[in-house]
Amino acid sequence: MNPLNPSFARDVEDSFARQPIMKLIGARLSLVEPGVVEITLPYRADLLQQNGYLHAGIVTTIADSACGYAAYTLMPAGSNVLSVEFKLNLLRPAQGDTFVARAEVIKAGKTLTVVRADVFAINKTEERLLVATMQGTMICTGAPE
Amino acid sequence: MNPLNPSFARDVEDSFARQPIMKLIGARLSLVEPGVVEITLPYRADLLQQNGYLHAGIVTTIADSACGYAAYTLMPAGSNVLSVEFKLNLLRPAQGDTFVARAEVIKAGKTLTVVRADVFAINKTEERLLVATMQGTMICTGAPE
Amino acid sequence: MNPLNPSFARDVEDSFARQPIMKLIGARLSLVEPGVVEITLPYRADLLQQNGYLHAGIVTTIADSACGYAAYTLMPAGSNVLSVEFKLNLLRPAQGDTFVARAEVIKAGKTLTVVRADVFAINKTEERLLVATMQGTMICTGAPE
Amino acid sequence: MNPLNPSFARDVEDSFARQPIMKLIGARLSLVEPGVVEITLPYRADLLQQNGYLHAGIVTTIADSACGYAAYTLMPAGSNVLSVEFKLNLLRPAQGDTFVARAEVIKAGKTLTVVRADVFAINKTEERLLVATMQGTMICTGAPE
Repeated sequence: MNPLNPSFARDVEDSFARQPIMKLIGARLSLVEPGVVEITLPYRADLLQQNGYLHAGIVTTIADSACGYAAYTLMPAGSNVLSVEFKLNLLRPAQGDTFVARAEVIKAGKTLTVVRADVFAINKTEERLLVATMQGTMICTGAPE
Repeated sequence: MNPLNPSFARDVEDSFARQPIMKLIGARLSLVEPGVVEITLPYRADLLQQNGYLHAGIVTTIADSACGYAAYTLMPAGSNVLSVEFKLNLLRPAQGDTFVARAEVIKAGKTLTVVRADVFAINKTEERLLVATMQGTMICTGAPE
Repeated sequence: MNPLNPSFARDVEDSFARQPIMKLIGARLSLVEPGVVEITLPYRADLLQQNGYLHAGIVTTIADSACGYAAYTLMPAGSNVLSVEFKLNLLRPAQGDTFVARAEVIKAGKTLTVVRADVFAINKTEERLLVATMQGTMICTGAPE
Repeated sequence: MNPLNPSFARDVEDSFARQPIMKLIGARLSLVEPGVVEITLPYRADLLQQNGYLHAGIVTTIADSACGYAAYTLMPAGSNVLSVEFKLNLLRPAQGDTFVARAEVIKAGKTLTVVRADVFAINKTEERLLVATMQGTMICTGAPE
């Protein structure tokens, strides 16, 4: 996958830094490559649902941003990216010390880009367990205001 | 829709109170009826994405919990509810003073319940704009540990 | 919902007539209004899966075309419509004498239109049972070749 | 992935043979392994939509059956499998001489199994192009009647 925007990595980092929600939950960008982005989220007790698992909405928060930025790496400079829709399957209880959402572009288009993200829970033993998987559609909405 | 659990409303409130993520983002239960639940979230700058819209993951957080609890109102006493999967379409920029996720059960089953949620943005003029819609599947996993 | 194309109904009928698959399975257009389309499919033994229910792919065939044409009623004259994606929940066994897919536009946009379709099974007693529901995204791809 | 049912391959073949819709459209089982199933569908003019592409509902028909049978390979003997829900993204026009839906189990559970299917179009030059991708949930409903 060939990036059209030579400064795609810096542009993803800049945009990520402008997402206040990432700061609130403590997520950080951990990988930015053409068509692939990872976001890492350490466990925090205030992100959980009633059973002590990471809330599906927070699983979605990191998976969706990873999908959006994976799509964004392949868009022209000056683009903006928005989510059109996504679907998430929860596969196992989201329990772990760290969570990683890894998104990969399946098909990049001029307007729409289809992306998949896997969310892994990582424990102290470094075991990496797939806890959720997302399939979504991102749109390039042209230059930001 | 007939609730099997006479104390469904209190059980939803108790479970909601055990979701730390709801406290973190400032969401509250605003309606609990058989097969219908609403969650209300006031605007907060730290919940936004890079364009100043409510992050799709936070839209999902309130929509998913509303879906889960709408399903839960129709489950037997002592049940636990988990999300199997959901799909969210983002329809308009999620901008507003308050956001409301309203979930309604489409089909309640013994094991699986299918639910729809609409998420509205409400402005000072009380205009109510549909910004996202979710279709999801919830599972009854029996009595909690 | 205001149709931009005054001959939207005839254009939907013409396009439907150019879908050979509809003839193969025996489906017909039964309602075309701005933002709303219904497709009716009589029961046929050769459309079933292993349990004697209408195959989910055939449920999808009528639901998807109904969604596409519901979106198409609101597009400019000379447009073409394609499905971007859809999600279908199967709610009950698809058994009946006739099946009706009813699609309604949720949000019409210049490029993307979000549509919902309900699929009903109808029996001799005229009971109408919801057997599946779809949420999907359609795209306007400009004038056909 | 370890099959619980030693005769999983024959059981998939038997069930497939009881799906009349597969005969109608001309699809055949082309691979059955633990957790993986492929269905092959030769091009036919009567399966197309208005632009001459394979109708998304027929893409779904082979993808959904491939998902169901991939899940079925890992279920106990005497089980029945049904689709709970699926989501399909259309990535490119479905044009080709042959179409292959390849499904792989992502997570097998006692009740629910999550499966992914890719649908490829194959041309005379043997080029294999990804035209659609599905993520779905299958349920084991116990022994058939």
